[in-house]
Amino acid sequence: MTRISADLSPSFPATPDFDSWPVVERPVEASPIERGVRVLWDDGLESRFHVLWLRENSPDDIHPVTREPALMLEAIPDDLVARAASIEPGGVLRVDWSTGETSRYHPGWLRAHAVETGSDPMAMPPRTLWGAGLGGCLPRFDGAAILAGDPAEFAGWLEALHGYGVALLEGLPLEPDAVERIALMIGPIRPTNFGNVFEVRSKQDADSNAYTNMALPMHTDLATREYKPGLQFLFCMANEAAGGENQIADGFMIAETMRREVPDLFRTAATQPLVYGSRARTSDYRFACPMIRLAPDGTVEEVRVSPWLRAPLVAPLEDVDRAYRALRYFLAVSERPIMHVTLKLKPGDLLSFDNRRILHGRHVYDPATGERWLRGCYVEREELYSRLRILAREQRARAIAGDPARN
Amino acid sequence: MTRISADLSPSFPATPDFDSWPVVERPVEASPIERGVRVLWDDGLESRFHVLWLRENSPDDIHPVTREPALMLEAIPDDLVARAASIEPGGVLRVDWSTGETSRYHPGWLRAHAVETGSDPMAMPPRTLWGAGLGGCLPRFDGAAILAGDPAEFAGWLEALHGYGVALLEGLPLEPDAVERIALMIGPIRPTNFGNVFEVRSKQDADSNAYTNMALPMHTDLATREYKPGLQFLFCMANEAAGGENQIADGFMIAETMRREVPDLFRTAATQPLVYGSRARTSDYRFACPMIRLAPDGTVEEVRVSPWLRAPLVAPLEDVDRAYRALRYFLAVSERPIMHVTLKLKPGDLLSFDNRRILHGRHVYDPATGERWLRGCYVEREELYSRLRILAREQRARAIAGDPARN
Repeated sequence: MTRISADLSPSFPATPDFDSWPVVERPVEASPIERGVRVLWDDGLESRFHVLWLRENSPDDIHPVTREPALMLEAIPDDLVARAASIEPGGVLRVDWSTGETSRYHPGWLRAHAVETGSDPMAMPPRTLWGAGLGGCLPRFDGAAILAGDPAEFAGWLEALHGYGVALLEGLPLEPDAVERIALMIGPIRPTNFGNVFEVRSKQDADSNAYTNMALPMHTDLATREYKPGLQFLFCMANEAAGGENQIADGFMIAETMRREVPDLFRTAATQPLVYGSRARTSDYRFACPMIRLAPDGTVEEVRVSPWLRAPLVAPLEDVDRAYRALRYFLAVSERPIMHVTLKLKPGDLLSFDNRRILHGRHVYDPATGERWLRGCYVEREELYSRLRILAREQRARAIAGDPARN
Repeated sequence: MTRISADLSPSFPATPDFDSWPVVERPVEASPIERGVRVLWDDGLESRFHVLWLRENSPDDIHPVTREPALMLEAIPDDLVARAASIEPGGVLRVDWSTGETSRYHPGWLRAHAVETGSDPMAMPPRTLWGAGLGGCLPRFDGAAILAGDPAEFAGWLEALHGYGVALLEGLPLEPDAVERIALMIGPIRPTNFGNVFEVRSKQDADSNAYTNMALPMHTDLATREYKPGLQFLFCMANEAAGGENQIADGFMIAETMRREVPDLFRTAATQPLVYGSRARTSDYRFACPMIRLAPDGTVEEVRVSPWLRAPLVAPLEDVDRAYRALRYFLAVSERPIMHVTLKLKPGDLLSFDNRRILHGRHVYDPATGERWLRGCYVEREELYSRLRILAREQRARAIAGDPARN
């Protein structure tokens, strides 16, 4: 519900960021309380803000260029008190400090940071978990349009990549560097010991099973890294060999299925660390963590599955037994036909997915029947989150620009 | 204690990795048990290995080139049983499976993976926490020698960088790319929105307080990232301006001091998430987590402190109050003279440190009095861990090569 106030308020203070905050509700009353300021809003909400929090975020002490705080916390007296708090016309909170200074706060910004509204600065749009049914409606976008800078196509792709964890770009030019160019539209490419871009082709002296023609069971990449790459891009340059289809599955869906069907094994999967390790002559990456990682609120935030990067688990026999039972259950669920989607990439296709959520695999292929050449790279998931936040910020700015009363 | 056995054992099976495992103790007896195999060693240790674990790590089913498993877990029957277990001459464990296959295990590899020895594949050498006393004995290495490939100087640097979290390289050539060349000796450079290499100089349109001439209070870099860069390199090209000294402190020492002096506030610091956020026109990185992160065993594994990248904390007033008290205590400890070391970098110096452990800051400088120019970049901490493991592996290989009886 949006109530538009009639009074123009050209004198809103700056906000300590580059964002735009619509003014919908406004403060009507304010008073100092112990360690804070109490604010009553015109919709009846009562909110409380801490004195140090208010002082730190006072717009006057933000560096005018970087918009980062210029007043350091140590410079604020520990016994700071709000001597008076009041509401100025238009809904600006004014606080007079025991140090003699005065601070004024933008009502839209203030409201957006009131915990009493349920506001959560880390919130992201919800995810949609999926099974085989996604096959017919896999999110597809026009790769050439995205490369040419079409903002709507780009935004649609980013939203699908977050919501479904997977999206296909079609019709990209058959230029090897198309994968870098697409990836860089989201953020810097994360290099690994395989380079900035890895070539998925059958190699003689393969340093990973990926570089053979073997079938690859469902897995996530680089499980040996504490921070597994978040986004993976696989760009198809050629795919004439018999076989070599790609398979994808939603690891979060598999985890939720396990939580429902076998809560005990789910608990094991979410608590028993497994050991991941690379086998290589010149590097030895290792990481130990549960195959399902839960956020503090219990939602699944990462799955880590890599049959050939699991290192020997050093643990008591009983723990090893439980770990294997949980792992085998997870793998069995991932193999259910209802859980995965199979697709054969065409030259010019780019498959993009969340490597901390989506499992991918491939069928065996016969290199004698034709070429198969994919080029791949990684970008971090938080680069995607940052882009999505900027898109939302731009939307807010446009909405406000179109409505001067709320500016 | 090392007992050298007299019998040469040329027929040890391969190990499922590229490592070298000395044979010191040897199995003398083996028997099947429920879901596993029990092994008795010549020093009296009894160890138990799970059937699936043994089957998965059977050297015969390792890909001969990649040394990654070629036998997938799903292909092993769930009801696999060890029909017989025995010890062959030289101490090789032999297991006969209910499926008709036979597996043989290298005794050095097997022993190294017995949980009953306290073995931990994730163990790293211990860290040394430090205070101001480090100033006089800051680990220093010959940068030119490292660049020229001196293995002992390189190894010494890596060990100090892990143990103390900080080390200084001196005498590097005054070539801007020296910082990349040194960083790449450990691992790939982690790019950020500031590029592969960032230039720390006073800029007109600064997009970070770092690029002004302001004093920078003690902090860790890029607190807005879920996976904060692990290693930071700051290479000094010029430092003639008055001021601009660097300050460093051991964040783990500060955390442990807090744990001892104010256990309640330490608990808050280790559990209450803070919100970190960037202020920028075109990006919006955020991450929320406690400023002190503990490993499951309670040891400190990361500190995250960044005065100007803290975003407004949206939380109930009481939580905000506790969070500020913990944060202010941490900052106050970091300012104690006994906690930090001040140094003025000379041209050709490269300061390297663990950005997830060490706080760094700088004094204000006056750009009118001369040039100040640092070049910086990041590499992941796990790249350092991988290098240290390879060094240890090479040492093991050399020790075994010099002792044929244990080969």
